Amino acid sequence: MMENDPFSRWLGIEVLEAGAGSSRLSMRVREEMLNGFGIAHGAIAFALADSALAFASNGHGNHALSIDCTINHLIPVKEGEVLVATARQQTHGKSHGLYLVEVHNASGGLVAMFKGMVYLKASSWK
Amino acid sequence: MMENDPFSRWLGIEVLEAGAGSSRLSMRVREEMLNGFGIAHGAIAFALADSALAFASNGHGNHALSIDCTINHLIPVKEGEVLVATARQQTHGKSHGLYLVEVHNASGGLVAMFKGMVYLKASSWK
Amino acid sequence: MMENDPFSRWLGIEVLEAGAGSSRLSMRVREEMLNGFGIAHGAIAFALADSALAFASNGHGNHALSIDCTINHLIPVKEGEVLVATARQQTHGKSHGLYLVEVHNASGGLVAMFKGMVYLKASSWK
Amino acid sequence: MMENDPFSRWLGIEVLEAGAGSSRLSMRVREEMLNGFGIAHGAIAFALADSALAFASNGHGNHALSIDCTINHLIPVKEGEVLVATARQQTHGKSHGLYLVEVHNASGGLVAMFKGMVYLKASSWK
Repeated sequence: MMENDPFSRWLGIEVLEAGAGSSRLSMRVREEMLNGFGIAHGAIAFALADSALAFASNGHGNHALSIDCTINHLIPVKEGEVLVATARQQTHGKSHGLYLVEVHNASGGLVAMFKGMVYLKASSWK
Repeated sequence: MMENDPFSRWLGIEVLEAGAGSSRLSMRVREEMLNGFGIAHGAIAFALADSALAFASNGHGNHALSIDCTINHLIPVKEGEVLVATARQQTHGKSHGLYLVEVHNASGGLVAMFKGMVYLKASSWK
Repeated sequence: MMENDPFSRWLGIEVLEAGAGSSRLSMRVREEMLNGFGIAHGAIAFALADSALAFASNGHGNHALSIDCTINHLIPVKEGEVLVATARQQTHGKSHGLYLVEVHNASGGLVAMFKGMVYLKASSWK
Repeated sequence: MMENDPFSRWLGIEVLEAGAGSSRLSMRVREEMLNGFGIAHGAIAFALADSALAFASNGHGNHALSIDCTINHLIPVKEGEVLVATARQQTHGKSHGLYLVEVHNASGGLVAMFKGMVYLKASSWK
């Protein structure tokens, strides 16, 4: 999946762990990811969390489509910081799955909390 | 704001309109923004909507910090498509503001619906 | 639908309008709906909005199951106030529909903004 | 707090545990809490979770105002079922706190997942 994901490559995502229902990804925040206030754009933590969701929810084999995502930004992120996103499955039903993704900085602070619901299609992506 | 926003520049965002409580931004989806399924990564529509939120909510002068954002992905987005995000203020209180951002494709389809709450700081960013 | 909905009856909901994809409901806040701070419990505005979602999304005939709802509380609600919830369909696809519901008080203030996603089952409830 | 909360009393909420940043509440679903499809109205699980949020977030002493709540309905709830909501603090900052609330049924199934953000006022409610 990773080799064919241009945006995750641009983000510089490293897959620490990926399985059926869970994943752990990391990335380093670069200058081009900052917003007008000199901190990481809100979409950066979202992108990392959303990729973690994709790895975890597609890990079952079925095509999982994220349909409803929420993110809470809790701590500002600066250039050079390494972020780690950890996705944990809450439910995996017939048609939908629910995931929580925590994004931490290097000192263990909870930078963002992400919740994502996916629609599980009958088709397999493998 | 735009000149100092490296990530919005990377996205190729064009500001069509920006005022106190509203904004309209557009961008074209490039190959490096796609995910492993060949459609735009979920973070791309989020990024455009989040930037529209930033332009609209900071348009009042006070520093607005997005704290809670949700997005619904409704139509897949392909390479080359031009997206337009329109942010509309719902409330602007003493401490918080609420915004809806609609993201449309060129044929008028609602690609994503975004809702963002901002915390309004006493300080001005201007 | 209404005659068979005990909780909406307890709330005292009045259906002002109900169609395929839209609805308008009202109710009066009673003493037993207040929380420990003497204002309406957050679940009251949610309940009215969620009922408006149910009326609008089931109006197409197919069984619509609400799966992901968010609410922003914007203005406190007091005993005796009459609330009106207006549901508007954003999309109605093959498997999912998205709705916004605004809850206003009698002086036109936006008390709460609700967003709900429903899963559309193949079965009809009629 | 409980004695002065008429809606929580109507719900029949029992406080199993309540502290600074955490709480555990239970209730039994009665006939008048059902919707038109004969299952618990979505606002019932929301109400229990929202009350758990209020107990946990106000447990620090400062007045906590819930401003942004999301709920995912995962398993339908029937009349007579006993639900237990467990609230866990994710962050407690200067101005905002974030909580997750899980609602389980008697057989341990995750009925609903709730995420709530509160605004922490300087004033104390005690």
